[in-house]
Amino acid sequence: MPAEQKDPNFEARVRASFALQNIMQLIGARLSRVEPGIVEIDLDSRSDLTQQNGYVHAGIVTTILDSACGYAAHTLMPANSGVLSVEFKVNLLAPAQGERISARAEVKRSGRTLTVCTADAFAINGEDETLCATMLATMFCVKPKGVE
Amino acid sequence: MPAEQKDPNFEARVRASFALQNIMQLIGARLSRVEPGIVEIDLDSRSDLTQQNGYVHAGIVTTILDSACGYAAHTLMPANSGVLSVEFKVNLLAPAQGERISARAEVKRSGRTLTVCTADAFAINGEDETLCATMLATMFCVKPKGVE
Amino acid sequence: MPAEQKDPNFEARVRASFALQNIMQLIGARLSRVEPGIVEIDLDSRSDLTQQNGYVHAGIVTTILDSACGYAAHTLMPANSGVLSVEFKVNLLAPAQGERISARAEVKRSGRTLTVCTADAFAINGEDETLCATMLATMFCVKPKGVE
Amino acid sequence: MPAEQKDPNFEARVRASFALQNIMQLIGARLSRVEPGIVEIDLDSRSDLTQQNGYVHAGIVTTILDSACGYAAHTLMPANSGVLSVEFKVNLLAPAQGERISARAEVKRSGRTLTVCTADAFAINGEDETLCATMLATMFCVKPKGVE
Repeated sequence: MPAEQKDPNFEARVRASFALQNIMQLIGARLSRVEPGIVEIDLDSRSDLTQQNGYVHAGIVTTILDSACGYAAHTLMPANSGVLSVEFKVNLLAPAQGERISARAEVKRSGRTLTVCTADAFAINGEDETLCATMLATMFCVKPKGVE
Repeated sequence: MPAEQKDPNFEARVRASFALQNIMQLIGARLSRVEPGIVEIDLDSRSDLTQQNGYVHAGIVTTILDSACGYAAHTLMPANSGVLSVEFKVNLLAPAQGERISARAEVKRSGRTLTVCTADAFAINGEDETLCATMLATMFCVKPKGVE
Repeated sequence: MPAEQKDPNFEARVRASFALQNIMQLIGARLSRVEPGIVEIDLDSRSDLTQQNGYVHAGIVTTILDSACGYAAHTLMPANSGVLSVEFKVNLLAPAQGERISARAEVKRSGRTLTVCTADAFAINGEDETLCATMLATMFCVKPKGVE
Repeated sequence: MPAEQKDPNFEARVRASFALQNIMQLIGARLSRVEPGIVEIDLDSRSDLTQQNGYVHAGIVTTILDSACGYAAHTLMPANSGVLSVEFKVNLLAPAQGERISARAEVKRSGRTLTVCTADAFAINGEDETLCATMLATMFCVKPKGVE
């Protein structure tokens, strides 16, 4: 139930901010979908991203879930605003094991200052998708200077 | 209030598991303290770990908080057991901006199957430490085969 | 994506347990839907359930969200098992203000020991429903004695 | 590490708001400590507050944890401000079984808009205290009209 769009330029704004997240280049994550209230980020599995059992580390799954939630919230924020994570909770549901991990976020409730998002992460192997983690997150709208 | 130690070899066990977490090498994290119910992980700030404002990304802070919690729980688990994250919640309290980020975890309650941990992350600049994130996490003890 | 049903008698089992929750009588909550992986609990608003602004207190909304999640998990557990809450996170999205509050839970992932559920709470006024809170919860299956 | 006090009248303000929470009278909870950044709420166990095993329901433990966190945050907010819960996470650590349940909250970080608090709940039997639940919560400062 995303609120209405406030900035027609939202996609360029989100893509420009994502390009500034150096961590995304380090881990090889890409922004694969940007729509009002919805963002997806994909990550190819790599052996240098793993925990002790060879799965993608929960913190790396969280990295793409958090950015997906932040940018989903950002799509609905005013022009010139910024976004910061207030907090998130993640449940790990299955090993993050697959060719690719896909984080899919959507806005649950959009407010003037705070936006609440949910996101699911899927481990993808060919045609198969396994839900491997889920996030519930709160995002903060950093307003442009001089605006309240 | 950590429960008593069940495995005198806990430190070697934790260090061996940490060495298998390839992600720790990628981001440059190191295990700096391993005691019964307490684990610390340190990370030097690097420009390839950042989000859009130049701070260490919340997901990377989460990566070291999560491993610190998991291994703090692991120090109190039986020999030959493994540890998996069930879930965690993180509050971001200040920018993760400093020479170094230090994640300090301790066991809050240790159970047969589930262990609850808390952890704080500090951004360190010379003598100054700023609390930048806090985690509350649930860890699962994977028992050795044949043991319940 | 609830797993398959393990106990054909699940509804009677859930209703019997709910009847033992004395708190539900005190606050006037009722079990309005029990299906595999899905449970709803309804509560009429009352002035003795409120916080300082006259809305139903977040803890009371949590009370019905938590029981709805626990029983949604319970519908998929084996005969003679019990259910306990491990942890939950709640986001408050709008004032819990209406004639009635309805908590609707469903199983997100069902495991042998742990089940993860989500639930939404709605404030209901005539035909209008406002999403007022959302929960992400982890439930524990207490197995019957002698069974692992 | 509570920030400094902004309103010398904080205790009267918190007590007045607590007195408006009708739910506290229904369950028999009382405000037992109000200091800058610290609040405690106590609840006598009663058979009408229980879940299916005869323990105080997790939602009722949450009710006093949430109000304790909210008022701990409120002690540090400006005069004429209000407080609302944004979100909280609770881990249930042991049965809430005792003569009395005591919720003890403190401010972890106080900000202009958001305050993060932690709280522990103890089940008290004579001299014995058992940690039975812990909360990590985010509170929102509702500023007086005309002030930003």
